[in-house]
Amino acid sequence: MMDFTKRVRGTRDFLPPFSVKRAEFLRIIEDTYREFGFLPWDTPALETAELLTSKGGEEIREELYIFKDKAGREIGLRFDLTLPTARVLAENKTMPLPIKRYMIGKVWRYDRPQAGRFREFTQADVDIFGSDKPVADAEVVAAPWTALKRAGLEGTVQVNDRRLLDAIADYVGLPESRRAEFYRAIDKWYKVGEDGVRKELGELGKYLDRFLEFNNGLDELPEPTEDIKKAKDCLLKLGEYLDDFGVIWTFNLFIVRGLDYYTGPIFETFVDRPTSILSGGRYDKLIGLLGGRDIPAVGMSIGVDRALDLYVDSMDLQAKEADVYVAVIPGYEGEAIQISKELRAGGKSVFMDVTGRKLGKQLADAERRGIRTVVIVGRETEKGQVVVKSLESGEQKTVPIDSMITL
Amino acid sequence: MMDFTKRVRGTRDFLPPFSVKRAEFLRIIEDTYREFGFLPWDTPALETAELLTSKGGEEIREELYIFKDKAGREIGLRFDLTLPTARVLAENKTMPLPIKRYMIGKVWRYDRPQAGRFREFTQADVDIFGSDKPVADAEVVAAPWTALKRAGLEGTVQVNDRRLLDAIADYVGLPESRRAEFYRAIDKWYKVGEDGVRKELGELGKYLDRFLEFNNGLDELPEPTEDIKKAKDCLLKLGEYLDDFGVIWTFNLFIVRGLDYYTGPIFETFVDRPTSILSGGRYDKLIGLLGGRDIPAVGMSIGVDRALDLYVDSMDLQAKEADVYVAVIPGYEGEAIQISKELRAGGKSVFMDVTGRKLGKQLADAERRGIRTVVIVGRETEKGQVVVKSLESGEQKTVPIDSMITL
Repeated sequence: MMDFTKRVRGTRDFLPPFSVKRAEFLRIIEDTYREFGFLPWDTPALETAELLTSKGGEEIREELYIFKDKAGREIGLRFDLTLPTARVLAENKTMPLPIKRYMIGKVWRYDRPQAGRFREFTQADVDIFGSDKPVADAEVVAAPWTALKRAGLEGTVQVNDRRLLDAIADYVGLPESRRAEFYRAIDKWYKVGEDGVRKELGELGKYLDRFLEFNNGLDELPEPTEDIKKAKDCLLKLGEYLDDFGVIWTFNLFIVRGLDYYTGPIFETFVDRPTSILSGGRYDKLIGLLGGRDIPAVGMSIGVDRALDLYVDSMDLQAKEADVYVAVIPGYEGEAIQISKELRAGGKSVFMDVTGRKLGKQLADAERRGIRTVVIVGRETEKGQVVVKSLESGEQKTVPIDSMITL
Repeated sequence: MMDFTKRVRGTRDFLPPFSVKRAEFLRIIEDTYREFGFLPWDTPALETAELLTSKGGEEIREELYIFKDKAGREIGLRFDLTLPTARVLAENKTMPLPIKRYMIGKVWRYDRPQAGRFREFTQADVDIFGSDKPVADAEVVAAPWTALKRAGLEGTVQVNDRRLLDAIADYVGLPESRRAEFYRAIDKWYKVGEDGVRKELGELGKYLDRFLEFNNGLDELPEPTEDIKKAKDCLLKLGEYLDDFGVIWTFNLFIVRGLDYYTGPIFETFVDRPTSILSGGRYDKLIGLLGGRDIPAVGMSIGVDRALDLYVDSMDLQAKEADVYVAVIPGYEGEAIQISKELRAGGKSVFMDVTGRKLGKQLADAERRGIRTVVIVGRETEKGQVVVKSLESGEQKTVPIDSMITL
């Protein structure tokens, strides 16, 4: 017999009680995004291979789910939420700007599965299109940062700027042809430490010493060139706005971020190092490259799965599954439905038993579900009454049905 | 130059204002499901080809997205939310029953794209596992029906039972070998009418006449055999419970539903015929077939995209994008951030301008976004004041920042 019960490698099921916390966490994010004036978008999971490989070229294929549909067209699963959004903007050339949009959804990458990394995972993005101002950068950081804070995850945002990196690279004479390699190496500082970075840098290590002169805090950053001064001033302004929003942040010259489309400020957020749970930056060229107008853009993405692990770690997982458990004596199903309806109308969530099993089993089931108030529906209903039992105190009393809504 | 702006055929983008209504609609559904004591599950979009083709066999492949991953394993995109849930139950053999779970997510079918049908669409399911009682059938109908009613979509649930169909087929002598064909034909009654059904039935039409004798309402249904009487009694009991829940329903012998795994009551819900927006039924054998325990199961699924179209049809789409628009005079960004923060703390959603454009343009932008209250942040802040302008009345007054939260 075939085994149908296997999951696809690198995917996961979310089941209670974890999935209840997940839904709660996603709602905190969504509510906060709305409060900041961002509106929801939703684009398909499936995109054309043309779009998916338009940035990063053929080598990115290695990391993607791409296949042919029945008509022979190459399509695949999105690997982030930014590229599909850029597609929409490139396609709809007359959408009024600025746009503040959020998008929460799954993305797929054919990574090597490892602890805490999945091939199917969830991102929760905010982006602002149509403003190149530092106040936009600050707001796009503040919305998700505030959401995470409300969920108890008060991280520190590490801030850097691609323009600053390039200005310093110009100043210290780091050859253009070696920059990608250099940036890739220093970006691993949090994972492998200074020694690890030096080892990876090899002969480029001499430039690291020069860069380190610029990593003693933003206020103290030397200004040997006009470009460096300009980039520093931008970061100072951005920092001011982040302070205004109440965001906790710090300057960190060794934040680079992998994607090559960033053109300005870049961000990573650590709660438990070295796990970044909120990252992004400014990317002013991407939409123009896809054939649309040139639209300045800045965005942040919450890595929901990683953030969720931290969120759940900090709490008692066994949440109550509903406010009230309605236990039903066989023969009184109709009455139980009526009473459940009234409780729901009073704003309670109700788990009604539908199995017809013995009362003792129903009470044990309520206990297991973390529901502390049980309404027992039986022959007392013939006198307009129900039995209310508190699993907390063990107390039990017979009350009129009408008084039940005060539970 | 390549055109990156094409969507994959049969997929769609959800953009404001439609996407705002979509988020609102999904939330009504989710809140109602929780109120009824159902808990959220989430399973991957990707499943093994083995699972996806386990029901319906090889011919179902035609309708599926199935492909090989880089390791040569056949995987694909789920086409419903029931089979993945059954997989979880077959895999986790010790999960305590009963389980009431909901799942809202996208599914994919390689249908011929046509008006109102998409290859990627959303379902919102509730299922109860571990009870074979009619009260479970009724509750699993009541939860989504109530959600739709709250969204203004008060449909009529058409109720039938596979056991009744089979009992009548036995009685009228419809050969077992022709039943699938007969059921498929009568299921189209709503789409093609009686004439269409007769045409499709051909020589089987003579059985239709016999079946019609049983379609004059449930109370009047003849009881020539014990099996028919038993099925009728079950439906009467179910109908009683549906009444208790307040669900509007009607008996309809010509509801069959395509999937062959149904074993008891079956349901379709029409608001605007012939579009069913809520359907499902009892399937007691499926989980056992996948190698798990035998678990009685009953479930309903809201076709979110079709229901959403009806939901949105009935309202003014231009909703306000936020409660308050904060217009910013350049140079007062920091103050604007503070004031936005205070408004948010007071429970308002705030769209703050981040473009640095002229005030007149900002006011026009507020108008376009349907936001009627504008707080203008400029030099008045130096005296602890802001200008509040109503786009409704045109009225404008200068008020202390502290008094603003009463907006």
